Amino acid sequence: MLTGLMMHAPLQISALIQHAERWHGDTEIVSRRTEGDIHRYTWRDAHRRTRLLANALKRLGCQAGDRIGTLAWNGYRHLEIYFATSGSELVCHTINPRLFPEQIAYIVNHAQDQYLFFDITFLPLLEALAPQLGGVKAFVAMTDRDHLPDSSLPRLLCYETLLEAEDDQFEWPSFDENTASSLCYTSGTTGNPKGVLYSHRSTLLHSLAIALPDALDLSARDCVLPVVPMFHVNAWGIPYAAPMTGCKLVFPGPKLDGASLTELFEQEGVTVTAGVPTVWLALLQHWKQTDYRPSTLNRVVIGGAAPPESMVRSFVQDYGCHVLHAWGMSEMSPVGTVYAPKFKHKDATQEQLLPLQLKQGRPVFGVDMRIIDANNTPLPHDGVAFGDLQVRGPWICSQYYERERGAEHSDDGWFSTGDVATIDSDGYMQITDRSKDVIKSGGEWISSIALENIMMSHPAVAEAAAIGIRHPKWDERPILVIVRKNGQSLSREEALAWFEGKIAKWWMPNDIVFLDELPHTATGKVQKLKLRERFHDYVLPDA
Amino acid sequence: MLTGLMMHAPLQISALIQHAERWHGDTEIVSRRTEGDIHRYTWRDAHRRTRLLANALKRLGCQAGDRIGTLAWNGYRHLEIYFATSGSELVCHTINPRLFPEQIAYIVNHAQDQYLFFDITFLPLLEALAPQLGGVKAFVAMTDRDHLPDSSLPRLLCYETLLEAEDDQFEWPSFDENTASSLCYTSGTTGNPKGVLYSHRSTLLHSLAIALPDALDLSARDCVLPVVPMFHVNAWGIPYAAPMTGCKLVFPGPKLDGASLTELFEQEGVTVTAGVPTVWLALLQHWKQTDYRPSTLNRVVIGGAAPPESMVRSFVQDYGCHVLHAWGMSEMSPVGTVYAPKFKHKDATQEQLLPLQLKQGRPVFGVDMRIIDANNTPLPHDGVAFGDLQVRGPWICSQYYERERGAEHSDDGWFSTGDVATIDSDGYMQITDRSKDVIKSGGEWISSIALENIMMSHPAVAEAAAIGIRHPKWDERPILVIVRKNGQSLSREEALAWFEGKIAKWWMPNDIVFLDELPHTATGKVQKLKLRERFHDYVLPDA
Repeated sequence: MLTGLMMHAPLQISALIQHAERWHGDTEIVSRRTEGDIHRYTWRDAHRRTRLLANALKRLGCQAGDRIGTLAWNGYRHLEIYFATSGSELVCHTINPRLFPEQIAYIVNHAQDQYLFFDITFLPLLEALAPQLGGVKAFVAMTDRDHLPDSSLPRLLCYETLLEAEDDQFEWPSFDENTASSLCYTSGTTGNPKGVLYSHRSTLLHSLAIALPDALDLSARDCVLPVVPMFHVNAWGIPYAAPMTGCKLVFPGPKLDGASLTELFEQEGVTVTAGVPTVWLALLQHWKQTDYRPSTLNRVVIGGAAPPESMVRSFVQDYGCHVLHAWGMSEMSPVGTVYAPKFKHKDATQEQLLPLQLKQGRPVFGVDMRIIDANNTPLPHDGVAFGDLQVRGPWICSQYYERERGAEHSDDGWFSTGDVATIDSDGYMQITDRSKDVIKSGGEWISSIALENIMMSHPAVAEAAAIGIRHPKWDERPILVIVRKNGQSLSREEALAWFEGKIAKWWMPNDIVFLDELPHTATGKVQKLKLRERFHDYVLPDA
Repeated sequence: MLTGLMMHAPLQISALIQHAERWHGDTEIVSRRTEGDIHRYTWRDAHRRTRLLANALKRLGCQAGDRIGTLAWNGYRHLEIYFATSGSELVCHTINPRLFPEQIAYIVNHAQDQYLFFDITFLPLLEALAPQLGGVKAFVAMTDRDHLPDSSLPRLLCYETLLEAEDDQFEWPSFDENTASSLCYTSGTTGNPKGVLYSHRSTLLHSLAIALPDALDLSARDCVLPVVPMFHVNAWGIPYAAPMTGCKLVFPGPKLDGASLTELFEQEGVTVTAGVPTVWLALLQHWKQTDYRPSTLNRVVIGGAAPPESMVRSFVQDYGCHVLHAWGMSEMSPVGTVYAPKFKHKDATQEQLLPLQLKQGRPVFGVDMRIIDANNTPLPHDGVAFGDLQVRGPWICSQYYERERGAEHSDDGWFSTGDVATIDSDGYMQITDRSKDVIKSGGEWISSIALENIMMSHPAVAEAAAIGIRHPKWDERPILVIVRKNGQSLSREEALAWFEGKIAKWWMPNDIVFLDELPHTATGKVQKLKLRERFHDYVLPDA
């Protein structure tokens, strides 16, 4: 092998905050604090306090590889923890406070977190959990002594008191770029949460990729407000991409309602924001009620779930914002695809682009993806064929933390996302189903989501779920389980007739069942697993 | 060390062309050929023919690490050679045909090029050089049999004939990302040219960085025409960033005049172009003469030399183009800094931004830089202090190919650029001199370029050079060597008076010398080395 003669320079997270201080030292970071007020400082200040914290962690006895937990909102202290831990070879383990308490206890213990940093909002939660968290050496309240409430929490430390005791001299160590940098658990519908262990290399490559013009398009001209929480897949990587690009950063703290966000947009000149559809629904309602029009905001990143068409339309047509529809997973750092038009679309109207914009986007460079059928055979990129979506690349997880490698990680190097999707000839991917929900009829697949969407468009239908029922000849055939709207009538025949001309003949449901309600998860999703159990012995009319 | 659990995926150049085929297969690459006509095909075609060429190189017996030379313009075949060589673990060695023939022979022999691919334009050059190039196994004319001229060149092969014999099945091998990928020699003012050996890793990181919004801002919405040659530091990395972003690519071939470029801009819808000031001077003249206004072009990247203010003004004010003033070196892959405004400049006018735009730009993430004084002490970023500019990062050369490591590579990991620069508090860097030309007076530095610029602004001065003369007390003191304009008069005292109030007192030249002409290099630069030799024994009036 002939080796190139380029400098050895490992990709390390400490380089991000150093870059921000050196070249964007005066650029602001603004935070709405849990204490209630607005805090502002600069990248220079952030790096200084990050060094104080790195010294404090050292004094606390943290060793390379130790996991340090956080239960915190988006704010400057959380940012300092991100960089102080990873920068000094510790692992920043962000924990989702919205999980069930027993899941949080499982996660902290499975990760063996040495210290747990928390926003004071979560003090009651930790007081209740503390007896189960015997392995945690101390709980660090992310506030100053004046704001520290009385508490029964044992081994309680105060963040600002820790920092006050330290010096701001700290040399970031140099180490292998494949070293673990952060950890985030993902909770599936079954089983215990599973940890995704990111590395310095994966984080830096992901940061470069998401800042590209065809991804989030981040630059030093931007003022970015991540609504997506820092406890949720590192706020989609924005806290890392921000110091890389030198943008201004605005943290909303715990206040994610429309009025609070809009206030920050206006006061700080926010140009980009990122979050899930639920948050945007509330925001758009607030904008409508208050007759607001954004003055500086020009890009809204939507991910986590597919946005309804009306939401995209509203941002684009009513408020003049670009919508960046993105898709990813915790296992993918998380960004996999983002919507961005191409040169060939330069003369297309907003209306012509809308169907593309509702797809999940094109892969950013670094993410490779494919759709396969049940025989592992890749399917064409024609926008019609749909199959199991698999991904691979340098920021995609190779196995879960402290777990055996599972079937989702194939021997030929692909990760199965659990989604079923189409890919069109321009690379735009669209998720059509979850792999476990797709209905397999005679070796061919029927999208449960497509059937549900058609049924839901009927004026008498409140809710509908399509599930596969065992069939002696076809393996599975679809039935529709329907909840009628209050006071509305709809017969089996009328429901079936609704599909005429809208789907291929062989997709036609074999039966319609009416229920008074469907089973739901805590977050409002239909529990298809429960439905399938309930209809396990159901006999189809033609079977 | 706790290792992250992310997929192992080396950064390889073959991933770029595969990404382009898979996600941007229909996007066009348009080339003005040396044969005279316009050639167009797609990224899918490009990847297919790249695989044919990879098979041909294998059949020719090329082994991992072999250097393959090119003497060629910007065109699709050159692009195929870039990817076929690097992708199959060979080294793409681009040679600058504008060098002196003896330098070309030196370079080919020093690199031990196994094969030499050339555009037919360069057939006479190679016929003359062939006797000195005994180590080259064959010369491959980048054309088809019909366009191959009669020639005395020995061991002559035809590009299209080679490809016709091959199959388009080729599996790109996977290997260490630090493997050498391409080679480019840089010719200083003294000594033999020195080779910079890039790696797959450095090339991919550089590609990501230059595509960022604050660098060249490249996306799939763009149509990019690189005027900067592919034989000159890989056309600033554009041939790699293009498949990464999936942009449309337009190659001008050998025709770099204003009319030919403008024709391509209009016909193909070019949005971005990149080149040196000399090319833009001719282009702007053509635009003025023909009353042309660009219809799609919106960004002009200017590098290689500092553009005059009038050029920047003209692009921005007369033609509505963004000017991206960039700086770099062959040793830096080449991009180090690019001009881009910040959030704080959001309300600044074009006129207010112009002084910033004339600086060399801010470092892109991945490039770290500093200015140091003669004692190796870093100087402040205040826009005033100036010192030797040093850089480091993953795409900066660590030593030259087959050479001992020189003094330009410091033991503490920095590369000395040979430039003297200031850096302001926002990170904008400005080159004020070459290190060897700066005048060292009493431990402080005086910028020769600053003195020359002031003197050149005098209406009677045709040309001026500032050089340091030995001084018993101050080590060096400046003198100005001046060529008066034809028929103009200017006395020593008038010349000295011109500096009053324009510089610090201690910068005042100690003498003025008038000459009829200054010594110049082949490319028109003043040969300061010759001047210094000539004035070696010069005695200053006050010495």
